[in-house]
Amino acid sequence: MITVEQAMEVMLGHVRTTPGEEMDLLDAAGRVLGEDIRSPENLPSFARSGVDGYALRSEDAAVHGARLRVVAEYRAGDRPGPSLHAGEAVRIMTGAALPPGADAVAWQEDSERDGDWVLLSRPVSAGANVGPIGEDLKQGDSVVPAGALLRPAEVGLLAAVGHTRVRVHRRPRVAILSTGDEVVPPEVRPEPGQVRNSNEMALAAALRQMGAEPLRLGGRGDDPDAIAAALRRADDADLILTTGGASHGDYDVAAASFDRLGAERLFWHVAMKPGTPFLAACWDSRLVIGLSGNPAAAITTFDILVRPVVAALSGRRGWRPFRAQAVLDQPVVKPSALRRYMRGTRYDQEGVLRVRNDMTQRSGVLSSMTRANCYVVVPENTPALAAGDLVLTVSPDLAG
Amino acid sequence: MITVEQAMEVMLGHVRTTPGEEMDLLDAAGRVLGEDIRSPENLPSFARSGVDGYALRSEDAAVHGARLRVVAEYRAGDRPGPSLHAGEAVRIMTGAALPPGADAVAWQEDSERDGDWVLLSRPVSAGANVGPIGEDLKQGDSVVPAGALLRPAEVGLLAAVGHTRVRVHRRPRVAILSTGDEVVPPEVRPEPGQVRNSNEMALAAALRQMGAEPLRLGGRGDDPDAIAAALRRADDADLILTTGGASHGDYDVAAASFDRLGAERLFWHVAMKPGTPFLAACWDSRLVIGLSGNPAAAITTFDILVRPVVAALSGRRGWRPFRAQAVLDQPVVKPSALRRYMRGTRYDQEGVLRVRNDMTQRSGVLSSMTRANCYVVVPENTPALAAGDLVLTVSPDLAG
Repeated sequence: MITVEQAMEVMLGHVRTTPGEEMDLLDAAGRVLGEDIRSPENLPSFARSGVDGYALRSEDAAVHGARLRVVAEYRAGDRPGPSLHAGEAVRIMTGAALPPGADAVAWQEDSERDGDWVLLSRPVSAGANVGPIGEDLKQGDSVVPAGALLRPAEVGLLAAVGHTRVRVHRRPRVAILSTGDEVVPPEVRPEPGQVRNSNEMALAAALRQMGAEPLRLGGRGDDPDAIAAALRRADDADLILTTGGASHGDYDVAAASFDRLGAERLFWHVAMKPGTPFLAACWDSRLVIGLSGNPAAAITTFDILVRPVVAALSGRRGWRPFRAQAVLDQPVVKPSALRRYMRGTRYDQEGVLRVRNDMTQRSGVLSSMTRANCYVVVPENTPALAAGDLVLTVSPDLAG
Repeated sequence: MITVEQAMEVMLGHVRTTPGEEMDLLDAAGRVLGEDIRSPENLPSFARSGVDGYALRSEDAAVHGARLRVVAEYRAGDRPGPSLHAGEAVRIMTGAALPPGADAVAWQEDSERDGDWVLLSRPVSAGANVGPIGEDLKQGDSVVPAGALLRPAEVGLLAAVGHTRVRVHRRPRVAILSTGDEVVPPEVRPEPGQVRNSNEMALAAALRQMGAEPLRLGGRGDDPDAIAAALRRADDADLILTTGGASHGDYDVAAASFDRLGAERLFWHVAMKPGTPFLAACWDSRLVIGLSGNPAAAITTFDILVRPVVAALSGRRGWRPFRAQAVLDQPVVKPSALRRYMRGTRYDQEGVLRVRNDMTQRSGVLSSMTRANCYVVVPENTPALAAGDLVLTVSPDLAG
């Protein structure tokens, strides 16, 4: 059985990032940049004052008690006026451009105004309280590299250099098909023996959370031919997920369906619990992945094994799940030869991370996942963990 | 000057959560539930098998080597058939309903089939491999409480009990107005002395990230009357943000504008850096907040002081910024009487959190924020921090 790390390596080797599309900058927030953007100009394009005070030539203010003649007043937005001459100062407001010749600003708290004159209580050195040209970005500097997520700071910085249209990766389209004759749509009242299709809804919500576009194929029963036919029509998807029928048994529906589809099997079963019977194949250059039908197992394997794939499809470079050590609140007594991803609730006490894991871990139980915000990773062949042990927690949904 | 904690308490005391609206469950993903939802039924509504095997009466399989007659075969989705009699078993697949009378399932790996008979290699105790009725939720149990964020697990669980329409809080509408005669729209090429309006774009992106709806009022210069008039027209906003003109100086535009609007001032200046000149007022039952015009200071104060307000407007209960201790990579040598929120890049080494803080911290510089993913909190009156010190990091944007 291959490890989680091996499974990731195989799957990421089959990912082709989505093509780019151009759009307005604000609409691109939360998307992944598809081009390297360099600054067409210096930011700021002029030297500006960082405080309210007096712009001056530092050579005129090298000593205590310098007295300068105030020849003008500049507010932010004013076009910088004529050059400053020796012995002159300009009353200047935060953000205003320095007049040519000025190389420093005296803070107004260190000055005393007397009509047209200002008296400085302390020397002012060159560059003091000045934001120089290109302080933020120099012409030609990288603004945001390809593969970066456009967060608020990236959006602001692109706007600051006037880059208001950007090329970002198209949202990955991810088809979701639920197998199982027992599955009915969520709107339908199940007959005895039937269950509602909660997996499709949970996975669709998780995909939207990642900026992907879910394509809901619904429940398609247990007939591999019918399932393969439905999958074949999803040929505009960048990734296909199925749930259910993935375990070894009399009705290995997922494996049979992928075979009928003509997909090349990459691996089946990953050394993790829950969700061991994870099936990965490749069809027409796209991954086709079979998840467990157990709701908690489906979400766990999506979080651990599928989120990195969706991030890579989206064009993300350097995506990693959020990981942090935490102090375990309750012991883990059940030994397991396979690595376990237990539901946990991580919280902090003045920044010290702790994790509760006292909720049920049964893979058919979804309610306990609503009380969890991370997974506690219990390494393979761990006999037991004690309360107070340091454990690794992962929260793939926190990785922006 | 009031502390960050005092500022939060005052502002949260002025928050009214947005009203509810009903929508389809999947569209509500990422929103905050506006009602307590209890389960109308048991989930699952029938006892089901957790494995492929044989459903039986445990009293018939209390000893080694029990031999039972296989009277039927049930797959998931089959309607449960007639009651099991003594000495009978039913071949059963994962997820299928147990026949009445059966109370346990023998795992197929512990059995040997012989025509119509099955021989069990070990005793089977009551309840073995059975998911009982109501294992996930019992009728009347809380499914999701009001105030909870609808994440994938919540969406799946609501779908599982057939709750496909939900009442969620309306997205908060947040108006953003930029003050300053120097500010031009991002599409416009600035004249000397002018800067593009990057704050509006960064804040709009941050608001969308939080599920809020930004109302962009653009740049409105420095005239308090004109600004107040523009703010007055934003009376459909749940919150109003302005940038710039918030510091004490000759042109305290934000404070003057809020006064002209008739807003009641709550506080001005918070004991934090950057972003000290943070101004909060209340107008017609909504908060009006003045942020610094410095891009990095605007984003920092938004993250630290405004995100909790937006979360509360959205109806979130128990929202907290993500906080974790991390090992500092570079020393902090600049002492400060005020608490500092320094830009940092938190990363993990096998789960041990570390934080780099070697980027520039100047509040006019936005580019270094694109390389940060957290704030390093330097407590008030800290003389210096050494590399290797444990520091508190906060990432308000990670709090789902």
